[in-house]
Amino acid sequence: MTLERPLPLETGGTLPGVRLAYETWGTPAPDGSNAVLVLHALTGDSHAAGPAEPGHPTPGWWDGLIGPGRPLDTDRYFVVVPNVLGGCQGSTGPASLRPDGRRPWGGSFPYITQRDQVAAEVQLADALGIDRWALVVGGSMGGMRALEWAVSQPDRVAALLLLATTGAASAEQIAWANAQIQAIRSDPGFRGGDYYDAAPGQGPHTGLGIARKIAHVTYRSEPELRVRFGRRPQGDEDPFRGGRFAVESYLDHHADKLVRRFDANSYIVLTETMNGHDVGRGRGGMAAALRRVTARTLVAGVDSDRLYPLYQQQELAAGIPGADRLRVIESPAGHDGFLIEIEQVGALIEELLKG
Amino acid sequence: MTLERPLPLETGGTLPGVRLAYETWGTPAPDGSNAVLVLHALTGDSHAAGPAEPGHPTPGWWDGLIGPGRPLDTDRYFVVVPNVLGGCQGSTGPASLRPDGRRPWGGSFPYITQRDQVAAEVQLADALGIDRWALVVGGSMGGMRALEWAVSQPDRVAALLLLATTGAASAEQIAWANAQIQAIRSDPGFRGGDYYDAAPGQGPHTGLGIARKIAHVTYRSEPELRVRFGRRPQGDEDPFRGGRFAVESYLDHHADKLVRRFDANSYIVLTETMNGHDVGRGRGGMAAALRRVTARTLVAGVDSDRLYPLYQQQELAAGIPGADRLRVIESPAGHDGFLIEIEQVGALIEELLKG
Repeated sequence: MTLERPLPLETGGTLPGVRLAYETWGTPAPDGSNAVLVLHALTGDSHAAGPAEPGHPTPGWWDGLIGPGRPLDTDRYFVVVPNVLGGCQGSTGPASLRPDGRRPWGGSFPYITQRDQVAAEVQLADALGIDRWALVVGGSMGGMRALEWAVSQPDRVAALLLLATTGAASAEQIAWANAQIQAIRSDPGFRGGDYYDAAPGQGPHTGLGIARKIAHVTYRSEPELRVRFGRRPQGDEDPFRGGRFAVESYLDHHADKLVRRFDANSYIVLTETMNGHDVGRGRGGMAAALRRVTARTLVAGVDSDRLYPLYQQQELAAGIPGADRLRVIESPAGHDGFLIEIEQVGALIEELLKG
Repeated sequence: MTLERPLPLETGGTLPGVRLAYETWGTPAPDGSNAVLVLHALTGDSHAAGPAEPGHPTPGWWDGLIGPGRPLDTDRYFVVVPNVLGGCQGSTGPASLRPDGRRPWGGSFPYITQRDQVAAEVQLADALGIDRWALVVGGSMGGMRALEWAVSQPDRVAALLLLATTGAASAEQIAWANAQIQAIRSDPGFRGGDYYDAAPGQGPHTGLGIARKIAHVTYRSEPELRVRFGRRPQGDEDPFRGGRFAVESYLDHHADKLVRRFDANSYIVLTETMNGHDVGRGRGGMAAALRRVTARTLVAGVDSDRLYPLYQQQELAAGIPGADRLRVIESPAGHDGFLIEIEQVGALIEELLKG
């Protein structure tokens, strides 16, 4: 859908012609009361369920959770998954054409915040006739937006599930983001963000790949890498003669995969929205902001998550009125546990929807 | 000193004209029995004590430990600190001239291992007339070499202090190294390592700076960054309008500082020696290698160290015959604790030298 009016931005100015791409599963109830909003993380998109297909280079990132008889039961619920504003899978972002229709925004895409992203999603809810979500759920960056929804629109969120997320980006999260953004910006193929007319393979792929490698290590856990890879060489490569260790090949693989499907400018724009995330900004601080939430809430973290350590989710569980005790997802996979431990996440969804 | 003969390398070939720079403090006993070998970490050098001075851009990195009346008491001990082979502070490395004397090694510097580095240091000990070190001590990469000394030359190491180090680089350590090395190599200023004739400011400074930022975060701890920086902006900069958070300025500062004093090729060569480090290679595995050690040994880790987690030092303490129980240095500073917690390190040195 396309917003009718230019979107006012938190830091000033407006963004005209905003388009939000989204996918839905299930059928909306006449009163819209069965709608669930699922919000994706940094490199996710609207394709939360279903196989890879044209326009969706990867299978649904929560396929096990969404469908008939699954925790987000599409025989019962109407599941809506928008691509985030600033992203690169259909919603307006740096790769979109500027209002003059002649060239992409590129490096001139405005600075946006998670509050701007949620403001656009509020207009999507209006357009779909959904007054109140039965559930808003998200992990990591998606959890930041889910929290913003519940704080800024408390009457429109009946239940809230926050996974592996935080009320405000930490110094460490900002530090990792800094190294990643610099890796992209300093790639000579980045050209200040105006690389869309580059010849194939000439974009800022190396920089984006390095950013992904940094991020990927922070997403996993040391014990998992130790058990999976140890010091094994990759195949018959010899690390003592120019070859790679298996863990290096694994990082190369994840970097290559992301570079093929994701836009470097979007990576920067979205990473900066995470750096800027502080639900207490202009609201009298974190504690006051969390008190605004009226949704039935569950907060969960992953025990091995070092990027979003449990203390961040503990702060949310303690601060949101009526939130149950912090739930801990057990996983060796680190931050990525919220994407991988489908059974444990599904049980939390079911508990919340029953409540 | 310059090695008389070309140094045979573990993976084949030789390195001719090897020079090892070193500094000493104190006076050698006539029988050389009071000599202590201090081995520096990745970006350290021979200047372990004393102020910054021409040729030594930074003050001694263990100044509080070395001097009259200090734990490494220079009224009593003869302290020797070589710059590592492959480094860039006086010892032979990629910035050194090739044997033809016409241009630096640059990208053609041979692949070396920690065993090659120790083999060169053995020749330094011979030249100084030191048959047996009263103590060999090192942290991080320096601890890897200290361990190699004790395993490969057990009769020449009377006491051994291993700090925040490992018997073999882990998958995670290799993963972080991979991202760092790629950041340097993909800097257009790197030019395959042959950048020494570049105009001022045209070297691979950005790539080396990104590598340093990645490394620096791994060297510290999340709680420390949280307490020191939180989400504070830097000075009157506004992160919502192009400014930086304080933690970003901190990383910029450390990147700038390293880039001014360290050579990018050396950074890669030394990082690769760490990736290759496995004291058990060709020796029947780690356990068998550790059993060769005859030195009185103490092994210590830092409680907040996530790059060299305590399990790595536990493995050393358990495997080295007679090594006392694992000692734990308490510090919020992460891996860098071995450089910062001088009092606790000093107490370990004194305990070992008394023993």
